[in-house]
Amino acid sequence: MFREQIKVLDCTIRDGGLINNHYFTDEFVRAVYQALSKSGIDYMEMGYRNSRELFPPTDFGAWKYCDDEKIRQITEGIESNIKLSIMVDAHRVKEQVFAPVDESPVDMIRVATYVKDMDKAIELIQKCHDLGYETTVNIMACSKEIEPDLAEGLDQLAKSPVDVVYVVDSFGALYCEQIEYLTKLYKKHLPAEKEIGVHCHNNQQLAYANTIEGIIHDANYVDGSLFGIGRGPGNCCLELLVGFLKNPKFNITPIFKVIQDYMIPMLEEIEWGYLVPYMITGMMNEHPRAAIAMRKTEDKDKYAEFYEELRDALD
Amino acid sequence: MFREQIKVLDCTIRDGGLINNHYFTDEFVRAVYQALSKSGIDYMEMGYRNSRELFPPTDFGAWKYCDDEKIRQITEGIESNIKLSIMVDAHRVKEQVFAPVDESPVDMIRVATYVKDMDKAIELIQKCHDLGYETTVNIMACSKEIEPDLAEGLDQLAKSPVDVVYVVDSFGALYCEQIEYLTKLYKKHLPAEKEIGVHCHNNQQLAYANTIEGIIHDANYVDGSLFGIGRGPGNCCLELLVGFLKNPKFNITPIFKVIQDYMIPMLEEIEWGYLVPYMITGMMNEHPRAAIAMRKTEDKDKYAEFYEELRDALD
Repeated sequence: MFREQIKVLDCTIRDGGLINNHYFTDEFVRAVYQALSKSGIDYMEMGYRNSRELFPPTDFGAWKYCDDEKIRQITEGIESNIKLSIMVDAHRVKEQVFAPVDESPVDMIRVATYVKDMDKAIELIQKCHDLGYETTVNIMACSKEIEPDLAEGLDQLAKSPVDVVYVVDSFGALYCEQIEYLTKLYKKHLPAEKEIGVHCHNNQQLAYANTIEGIIHDANYVDGSLFGIGRGPGNCCLELLVGFLKNPKFNITPIFKVIQDYMIPMLEEIEWGYLVPYMITGMMNEHPRAAIAMRKTEDKDKYAEFYEELRDALD
Repeated sequence: MFREQIKVLDCTIRDGGLINNHYFTDEFVRAVYQALSKSGIDYMEMGYRNSRELFPPTDFGAWKYCDDEKIRQITEGIESNIKLSIMVDAHRVKEQVFAPVDESPVDMIRVATYVKDMDKAIELIQKCHDLGYETTVNIMACSKEIEPDLAEGLDQLAKSPVDVVYVVDSFGALYCEQIEYLTKLYKKHLPAEKEIGVHCHNNQQLAYANTIEGIIHDANYVDGSLFGIGRGPGNCCLELLVGFLKNPKFNITPIFKVIQDYMIPMLEEIEWGYLVPYMITGMMNEHPRAAIAMRKTEDKDKYAEFYEELRDALD
């Protein structure tokens, strides 16, 4: 039995790119595109559309900008029904340009925002909607918001043309009962025709479990990435998600293949996955930046000291 | 808020020993004992008590037998309130000898059994109970049992003197709703004074989430291990469990310390944790033996081939 409305989005390139400044080879992005297409995944997120003024091209790879032309270089010649999405940060908007949807390879624009930037997010959503794109708002760090602020943001979104609103567990801090609570809160404040999404981080090895929890409570948009790649501990593993979902349109073999061919070798160059420093920031409901920083030092495995310093700093 | 009745058992040496034939150094076992004692963990499982006839001492380390005298060598001189447990397999019993509890360092004997061996398990439980030990029955592979057989086993246990009955997700196959179902089934068949336990495996990154699910549904005995060490993908991470539980008696720092000092270096010698072959056997509700075997070959990262072979073999 499956729920046809469930859509799976792969964020391998977008969230994984946060580890390596979005320097992925074209060969790799093409292999991912091909594997996801064969597997019946609904959406592939190609990266961010950021301004080159805020993020100079000397420091970042192509997937920080996701130019339509660059995307076309990847997808050209590969048979696929997959839809493509790009992400835009509401708090980092500067001269991002979007072509009308029928002139772009992109189908969906996802706006990541903090509650405080909701007005900027809605302005962007309106613009993207008017150009014909599917839209989502991904409310980051909702585990740190007090409920009236979050509710006000949701009430604003209820009146906007956004299609999907995501619960984003930015810090990997939420437990399943909190995912249930937030999913229900979102549903309460949003009209029935808007869909709920969940995007979970794996600090406490709960990204997959919390994604299932979201599905149980009627979230229909779920994010995963290959072998969980993503900043810090990474995301919900796409292979787990596809192993769980019963829709016969999915085919898991190409996912295993691209993991063995590309993700396992990549682990020798860049680090992601469950590690104690990320577990500590998750447990504390904190941004992983302190953990990311300490993983680049000689003291990268001094967990007890890291925990005590962080605890005392927050005291 | 916490539930005082919750007891945490660390199975680092017992389940971790399945990877290295229970060859752990005394230094390591002592360090674990010291850390767990300082952290306020309720039970430490020292290993198995197996017969030397079935498992010759030429092939296995001390923690395959857990002689009382050997345990005393470890604990001597370390201040501790932790209770000690050992495990016995009901289906592998041969001349295991137990001293009366007041002459032994062991407090609890856990009998691991398949449903088909329930009569042997109950005979052992009666013997251990009569010698004064706390007792548990850990029903292995319950994800493969049809319900009438499982229910019959539970009804037998209801009339036995066993203190705790464990839901054991041997294959890491269960999702949270199934843990809820099984925990409730166990409660329905067992008298109120018997406790429920959960022991979960991490094939699908659900060991911790499922342990929380068990706690939500009134399981009071929960197993974890340091950095999740255990056969194949391992167990619920003890550090996650202690990070979740709110009882002020717990102190997480010594757990972080022993992980950084011993577990991280150990990962260079023995392998455990989330890996795709274990995810595949978990997803298929199969024993991990095929995955363990393929991880020892040159093809250890050929996931797509492994998946298709296993799928076809089970067809």
